[in-house]
Parts: sequence; structure tokens; C-alpha cells
Amino acid sequence: MQAEIITIGDELLIGQVVDTNSAWMGRELNKAGITVHRISSVSDTEEDILAILQESVSRTPIVLITGGLGPTRDDITKAALCKFFNTRLVFNEEVYSDVENFLKHRVHRINTMNRDQAMVPESCTVIRNKIGTAPIMWFKTSKGVVVSMPGVPSEMKDAMQSSIIPRIVSEFVSEVLIHKTVHIFDIPEAMLAERLSGWEDELAANIKVAYLPQAGKIRLRLSGKGKDRDKLERLINEAIDKLYVIVGDNIFGFDEQLAEEELLKLLRNKAATISCAESCSGGYLSHLFTSVPGASDVFAGGIVAYSNKVKEEQLGVARSLIEQEGAVSKAVVEAMALGACKVLHSDYAIATSGIAGPSGGSSAKPVGTVWIAWATKDKVVSRLFNFGDGRERIIKRTGDAGVILLKQMIEKKEL
Amino acid sequence: MQAEIITIGDELLIGQVVDTNSAWMGRELNKAGITVHRISSVSDTEEDILAILQESVSRTPIVLITGGLGPTRDDITKAALCKFFNTRLVFNEEVYSDVENFLKHRVHRINTMNRDQAMVPESCTVIRNKIGTAPIMWFKTSKGVVVSMPGVPSEMKDAMQSSIIPRIVSEFVSEVLIHKTVHIFDIPEAMLAERLSGWEDELAANIKVAYLPQAGKIRLRLSGKGKDRDKLERLINEAIDKLYVIVGDNIFGFDEQLAEEELLKLLRNKAATISCAESCSGGYLSHLFTSVPGASDVFAGGIVAYSNKVKEEQLGVARSLIEQEGAVSKAVVEAMALGACKVLHSDYAIATSGIAGPSGGSSAKPVGTVWIAWATKDKVVSRLFNFGDGRERIIKRTGDAGVILLKQMIEKKEL
Repeated sequence: MQAEIITIGDELLIGQVVDTNSAWMGRELNKAGITVHRISSVSDTEEDILAILQESVSRTPIVLITGGLGPTRDDITKAALCKFFNTRLVFNEEVYSDVENFLKHRVHRINTMNRDQAMVPESCTVIRNKIGTAPIMWFKTSKGVVVSMPGVPSEMKDAMQSSIIPRIVSEFVSEVLIHKTVHIFDIPEAMLAERLSGWEDELAANIKVAYLPQAGKIRLRLSGKGKDRDKLERLINEAIDKLYVIVGDNIFGFDEQLAEEELLKLLRNKAATISCAESCSGGYLSHLFTSVPGASDVFAGGIVAYSNKVKEEQLGVARSLIEQEGAVSKAVVEAMALGACKVLHSDYAIATSGIAGPSGGSSAKPVGTVWIAWATKDKVVSRLFNFGDGRERIIKRTGDAGVILLKQMIEKKEL
Repeated sequence: MQAEIITIGDELLIGQVVDTNSAWMGRELNKAGITVHRISSVSDTEEDILAILQESVSRTPIVLITGGLGPTRDDITKAALCKFFNTRLVFNEEVYSDVENFLKHRVHRINTMNRDQAMVPESCTVIRNKIGTAPIMWFKTSKGVVVSMPGVPSEMKDAMQSSIIPRIVSEFVSEVLIHKTVHIFDIPEAMLAERLSGWEDELAANIKVAYLPQAGKIRLRLSGKGKDRDKLERLINEAIDKLYVIVGDNIFGFDEQLAEEELLKLLRNKAATISCAESCSGGYLSHLFTSVPGASDVFAGGIVAYSNKVKEEQLGVARSLIEQEGAVSKAVVEAMALGACKVLHSDYAIATSGIAGPSGGSSAKPVGTVWIAWATKDKVVSRLFNFGDGRERIIKRTGDAGVILLKQMIEKKEL
């Protein structure tokens, strides 16, 4: 079953907002066996909205629209839908009472603009929005359905999961589509492709593979389509078993697993704790860990040791060591990691020190030079990286390498 | 002058990758006076690529394509372009030598797949890719141009800025399009819309306004289109002057300015330093500051005090205070901020303590309850927030509020 997604809003076209809704929707629809074959973003003009509605309804049974339903004047999706479906706006008591209830709990007062939100096209079925004020509209078409949702991600997600996907599946879906993604680290894309060439040749005809590089990591996505879910899963699992023989050491995760989440689980199972001592990653590593719900029983804390003084006073790194070796050095990063274990009372620690740029590089230590150290109370190992250009990219690659390599070392009992 | 953007790749449609290229391109094109009126994402299949090429070339003079040019088998954009433009692939010596040079510096060896990247459609003009191996192709059409670029953001951005936009502007652009965005904080969207209703009525006909809410902030975008840049700028500046009269206290920035960048500038001008003591924001505040190039002369460091022990030992918060008041309290967050100033030797500090959830909430302190304190060496102020649901959202709102309100307090000389 095919779907397409339309996102409405000038802010998307002028690049003020990145469209993250479509990716989330694509992922959830896929899990439900629905293939998205087109995503379109159009402006808040009647002409553009009517044009994309015409195109999409004629080529695709399931059309999902987000955006343009807010209480402000620039939002005109509802009026355009009325025109397209040749219907008119009517006042809906149930929607109004939802809006009233929603706003009551937020101690706002209802204004005219909120009242306008209870006006809905006469010919649609209204799906209730449980966490916002804009109604969700389900329009039947000759081939399928057009659904219009708010662009606010939390409202869209709630509606998709609780009402829209279950309803689409029950009315339209038969064939199965499954994906499995393998996360690969520390190998360039062209080299990986060459090593996997024979493996690709042997894949079953209904299994497709795609390479998705991302800041030093590659996600290898295997997709299978057919009637029999069990058979597809078996084919994909067999392909992954063969992949392990070729690049097993570079594999660090699957699907939506986050390396930091897996590392925290591993530590939790050992009843161990972790801390960070960050110079060039500047808090990003701590942020990775603390973004995981329930991190607090494993993550002890972190010290963002941006200045040398903080490295000395908070982490106990000897001033002479910093003066002799420089802050970006094996000796200093190892002392930072051991210091973090000690002062933050953790079983493990990750420390970073490097040059994130754009300034501060030299010929001996160019921008992108990063030392990472991993320590326990009585052992420390470290490694030198060059993460290339771009401050943001260097910070993120530092965080990822810190997490992924510690997980591997613990699994291999090297630390 | 109108453009449309096509992004190619199954990974976009199944939601494995969020399309951030289009937003960046939309922004840059707009600055150059080019309006993007449609963004489309299609899969790596010949059928879908040919269909979108047909549609877009017939309706829009400038068509910009990213993605599907990698060395791996799933990338077929080049073949589809050959078919669409009825041409064939020929070996290009110059591209090959670029690929060779590029890879030589990266200590890889050239393989067949890299060699294939030097095959380019005969009828296009090749634009050199200075930072990657995939060539950039410029195809003339009867109405304008089709440009195909790699999907790797750094390569696309470099090509757009150094070659493609200047060339499009010189060949096609005449009318001016300008935007100015006002960042507004601490007021709900519907309430803001109501207060600005009269102001909107008085705007000139060629000035449009849009509301872009985002996690507790609203970006209000003013757009003007016409022949005369100076006149448009004057109209927009006048509108903003009037806006200040109505909601001046809620305005905290403009355009691409980041609040953290502005705060660091403000501190730099005062030769002052800042540090962070973070519980619920878990390193995110430090990460915000250290993401700004050159942060190191202003940002002293941070302590991620996730456990109470770290709050006591590193920040000097009295254990009795934590036991009496709880870690999420005015007294503790103020002690954290004062402690950070002292131990990290900074002139200012921001401290956070709250419940980011999903667990840990109670009826007295539900998920979303956050205390933020701002201190100098001898003064401290704090404020209680409720940032609603969602761990990621609570962390980000905590970081934003910490930064924006400190900037305002310093500007008003309240701290």
C-alpha cells in the first residue's frame, strides 16, 4: 500500500524549519507495511495546496497532510481543503468543547482564534486531537483517504499512533515491508561497498540494501517486501549473519538503538557507573547520556573542563603535565579520565581533549585532532583521532567514538 | 525567480534520515532572491526520479537535486538523468583526477567504484566538487536549469555557495525577496496573535507575516517582496519598531542569531566569564555554549551534577539543604549556581535542577518542574518553570530559558 506525505508551510520552503515530521511519519508508516513514495513540501498558498492535493490524490491512495492548521491568519489549509472537497466549514460542538477543556487546564482564556478552530469541513470525519486545539480531518476519496493533521510534532505523533495508522491499516493494508538497519563504524563507505560486493550479489531478489553514511558512521539498511513476514525476517537475519563474518568488528548496533542507550544498559547490568571529563566535546557526551530516560542510576556526573584551570583543580591533572605535553595530548587526556573516575566516584570514565576549531589548530595538531581516553579506577587506555573539519561534526564524532568504543571494550573485556 | 528542490533517497522516505539539506538550501536561495515553491523527496527508483523530473522541469525554471550520487549500487540518479536528458555517460579526465587527488590526501586507495564516479552525462556542464568525489552536473533546459548535487551536506553546501547560487543569480534573478525574523519568548501563540492583530492589519500589502512556534519560543517571520530592496527593508524595520511597543519585553533576538552566541558576545564585551552547574539539563547548557566557535575565552567550564554526591562534593551544596528542601528546590539550585561561580572561578553561573521525566515526578513536583538559578559571585536569583512533557523538550527549554533570561537580566542590569 502506497502513501504520500504533504507538509504545508512557508517556513519549510524558506528553510526556517527543518521538516522532521516526514521522517518520523515515514518510519512509522513503514513499520505498518505502508510505503511512502513521495514527500512534498508546499507553501501556505491556496494555489500550491490545491495543486499538490490534485496531484497526490490522483496518484496515491493514502495522502497524509501536516501543517497549516494553527489559529493564526497565515494558516489556510482548512479553507483549501474545503475548496478541494467542495464543502463548507461548520461549527463542531465536540471540537469546541475539546478546545475549551484543553485550554482550561492551561489557564489560558479562549479567544476568537481558538473558537475558529472548532469550525471544520462538513464532509470530513473529525478525529479528536487529545493534546492540542487543531482538529484532525479524515476525508474519504474514491481511491483511499486524505488526512489533515497539525504540524506540531507532538500532536501529529499522538494522532498518527493512536488513531490514523491503526485505521489505515485496518482499511487498506495487506503486503508486508520490513527493514533492519546495521550500524557500522570506523570504515569509509567506498571501502565497505567493495568488501560487501560479493555479499550483495548473494542477497535474495526481494531484499534491497542501502548505504546511509552519517558523520563517521554508516547505516546499512536491509529491506524486504512480500507476503510472508517470517520468511522475510529469516532472509534478513541470514544476510546479517554473513555480514558479521565480513565486517563483524565494525558493527556496533541495530535499528533505532542508540549506542549511548546500549552502553548505559550494559553498565546497569554490571551495576557500574560512568562519568565524563570533557574538554573539546564540551558537555555533549554528558548530554548524550542524560538524554536517555533513567540515566541517573548509571551516570554519576561530568566535568566540562574547558579551561586548564578546571582540568587542574577539578580533575587533579598536574599543571606540569599540561605545560609539558599540552592540553591536547595522550598524557593529559588519560589523567583527565582517571581524575573523573576518582573525583566523581564512578567505575568508568570517558575523557576528551582536542581541537574542535575553527581556530586553534597547528600543523602538528590540526583542527580535528582529538584524544579520547577511557578509564576504570586502575586502568586507562586512549586513542588519537582525526575527525576532519567542522566544529559541530567534530564534537559529535568525538561523542560517538567515546561511547561506541567503550561499549566494545567492555564487551571484549578489554576494560 | 522560482526554484524547486528534489531530494533523492529511500532513506528519506522511510524516515531513516531527516532531510536537512532542503531547509539549508531554501534559506540560502531566499537570501539570493530565489523563492522555493516546492520541495519533493522521492525514492532511488528510475520511475520516481523520471516522474519528478518531468513534473518539476515543466513547472519551474530552476530545479535543484541532491542525493543518489554515491559510489554504491543503490545510487542511480546519474543514470536517470542520462535517460531524462537523452544522453550517455562519458569518462571525464578532470573529474577522475579530482577524485584521485581527493582520495590521495585521505590515504585511501582508488577502487572501481570511485572510478565510476568520473563517468558523467555527455550533455551536462560539470561543476567541480572541491570536497568530495561525486561530480556536480548542470543541465540546461528550455526554461532554465537542472542541477544535480551530492546529498552529503558539506559537499552540497560548498557547491551551492561557491558555484551554483552565484551562477543562478547571474543568469536568472531580478526581483528581491527579504526576510527578517523576530524571536519571541514566554508568550503562547494564540495570545501573541491576538495582541498583534491590529499590528498585522496595518502592515503594507507586500509584507507577509508568519508565526513559527518551537518549544516555548515563537519565531515571527516578516517577508517582503518587490523591486526595491531599500524600501522593503525600511517597511520591515518600521513594522519591527511598532512590534517593540507591543511585545518588546518578549523579544530576545533576530534572524539566525543564537541566544547563546549573543550571550557569549555580551560577556566577552564585559571581559566576564561564565560557568554551568547542571542537574536536569545534564550537559546541554554547556554543549550550547561550547558549540559556539571561540567559546573558550568566555566559558570557563561546567559541572554536570547529576547525583546529589556531585552536588555536595563538587559544588559545595550542603547535604542538609538537599535533605531538607529536596534536590529540585529554590535553595539547592541557588546554592549550585553560587557554588559554580566559586569553584569554577567565573563571574556568572547558570544552574538547573528539575524533573525531566518520564519518571521521577510527583503531584507536588510533576515532570517538567524546573528551577533555574543565575548567579554572580555575590548575588543569586532564581525562577520556577513548568516546561510540560517530553524529556528532550524539557532539557532544551531549560537550556534556552537559562541562556535567554540571563542575557535579558544582564542587559537590564538586574544581574
